[in-house]
Amino acid sequence: MMAATAAGPAVGILGGGQLGRMLCMAAHQLGCTTHVYDPQANCPASQVTQHFTCAAYDDVVALTAFAASVDVVTFEFENVPAATAAQVASLVPLFPRAGVLAVAQDRLAEKSFAQDLGIATPAFAAVHCPDTLRSALKTIGAPAVLKTRRLGYDGKGQLRLTAARVSAKATALLAAPCILEAFVPFDSELSIIAACSQAGEIAFYPAVQNSHAKGILVRSQVPATVAKKAVRNALAATRKIADALDYVGVFAVEYFVLGDNVIFNEIAPRVHNSGHWTIEGAHTSQFENHIRAICDWPLGDTAARGAVEMHNIIGADIKDFAAMLATPGLHVHHYGKTEILPGRKMGHVTRVRPT
Amino acid sequence: MMAATAAGPAVGILGGGQLGRMLCMAAHQLGCTTHVYDPQANCPASQVTQHFTCAAYDDVVALTAFAASVDVVTFEFENVPAATAAQVASLVPLFPRAGVLAVAQDRLAEKSFAQDLGIATPAFAAVHCPDTLRSALKTIGAPAVLKTRRLGYDGKGQLRLTAARVSAKATALLAAPCILEAFVPFDSELSIIAACSQAGEIAFYPAVQNSHAKGILVRSQVPATVAKKAVRNALAATRKIADALDYVGVFAVEYFVLGDNVIFNEIAPRVHNSGHWTIEGAHTSQFENHIRAICDWPLGDTAARGAVEMHNIIGADIKDFAAMLATPGLHVHHYGKTEILPGRKMGHVTRVRPT
Repeated sequence: MMAATAAGPAVGILGGGQLGRMLCMAAHQLGCTTHVYDPQANCPASQVTQHFTCAAYDDVVALTAFAASVDVVTFEFENVPAATAAQVASLVPLFPRAGVLAVAQDRLAEKSFAQDLGIATPAFAAVHCPDTLRSALKTIGAPAVLKTRRLGYDGKGQLRLTAARVSAKATALLAAPCILEAFVPFDSELSIIAACSQAGEIAFYPAVQNSHAKGILVRSQVPATVAKKAVRNALAATRKIADALDYVGVFAVEYFVLGDNVIFNEIAPRVHNSGHWTIEGAHTSQFENHIRAICDWPLGDTAARGAVEMHNIIGADIKDFAAMLATPGLHVHHYGKTEILPGRKMGHVTRVRPT
Repeated sequence: MMAATAAGPAVGILGGGQLGRMLCMAAHQLGCTTHVYDPQANCPASQVTQHFTCAAYDDVVALTAFAASVDVVTFEFENVPAATAAQVASLVPLFPRAGVLAVAQDRLAEKSFAQDLGIATPAFAAVHCPDTLRSALKTIGAPAVLKTRRLGYDGKGQLRLTAARVSAKATALLAAPCILEAFVPFDSELSIIAACSQAGEIAFYPAVQNSHAKGILVRSQVPATVAKKAVRNALAATRKIADALDYVGVFAVEYFVLGDNVIFNEIAPRVHNSGHWTIEGAHTSQFENHIRAICDWPLGDTAARGAVEMHNIIGADIKDFAAMLATPGLHVHHYGKTEILPGRKMGHVTRVRPT
């Protein structure tokens, strides 16, 4: 356990988006200093940290200096290059462990991993050319979703195929290795956010019900209004995943809900957008619990403080910022992004109602 | 009103203690960047801000550059030198306005100001030598409290006189101009924290009941268990003070409670230790409302989210940090101070119970 008699440990964070920003703020509350590493100048986390390194992820010199300046390193996105994670982990403790990235960075590895644990997944197949796609479509059927195996987020790198034919768009996506997944006609989408300490504790936040539009999360709510059995199934699957990965820190698993059953969608080995409600809506936020976990401190209470709803502020909606501040009961978060882009997450709002 | 379409305004903060630290964190949530100015390297706020100037308060060149780098300036302590405040205010909007410092920096001016507004104060008299002290003790009687007019905090620069004679310690204190105040045999101590927007809104947090030990705040609780009439009297007096000062931002007024009556003790023209409970215990924290006010944004809801208790972590008690983190329901704040000193505020803990 790290010394906390005077100042707290120095926490390094790979990635400086809004998740890194909120991790910094949680680290500060616990007396930690922060050092953010991101190739992008003036990224959201760079604005709230004493130490910031603006360098490429393959800059060995910058990474070495970064690692030497901190007591522990974590990451805010799962696409940290494997070589970067390996280099950092050779110099300073890295949590979550580098191994989880191999699972989470590749949709094929991720789905196979879940399947091997006996967790239900959509039918899936690796595809890498029109021929393998055609063959996979025969087995899996349409509608189905074609996804690049790597680097997709917020619906990017995805294509829904409604008929069993290979369109020009599908061929274009196949420039990179892909996975074809059966489309799941889900009732609702659920995420389970868990925190795992170095001492082996595991704590689950209440299941979150999510709504997406154009592949982007727009709303999360707690409690979820799905069948209790579906939540129990999701919790059990998430526990299996945590155990199998020997996980340390916070992670999220997304599921599709079909009645009492849940079908694995994906793992995010990091704090997650569907957990932003925990800042005001839970006793301990996902960001604080992640910092507690990586610093080898005990986990905090994950219970909700009421019925909670979180909405993302997307693109130009941020222009209504002052009106949001004037809305009674709304907790407003602004990520400090200087450029408004369509579909870009600019902030979020949370409302907590007593239950 | 400041633009918030993309990034928020740049907020300058004079003073980098824990209050400045928590102001930075609230500013970050609202998308503001922060620039902290403090003569002390590695002060608590310097650890959580992108921009930090380490310079003396009379460094005209550094102050000018500081003011030029931000959209608005505030302060986290009332002993900002008058010349510093005047220089900053000549370059960039300063809130609270520089004029409030003249009232709050001098206990004699402060008590006279309250008295002129018709607010009850302890009997008081200016004293500057053993003779004037002897004479004041005749009028005011003992027990009484001798205080330096300027620069006291956490019980420093104060001496309780139990008999009407001039002790050696009293003579030593009289090296600086002093005030003699009648000792108030109070039932309890109350503070009222108010937020005032530039648009003229005023919002009050629920009255806070405080306990001190050796002049240092140890505990604050909400709701206060004093007579409702005493709270009403304190709120009315605080409103008079806000109006008279044409105040912008958050401030606190401390009162002694005697049955239904309250007696003015002092004004803190800034966020206040007795308002730390608002971070988790109110819908909008005192820090966020201060940032909203100085940025010309609407104020947030000041209502409590339950019954709240805040304890300061003083001196070596911070060594129990990990145990505090392991205590269910406790929100723990660590100020990142690198040196433990007796009587030094190292952090605080808050507990919120549903009501």
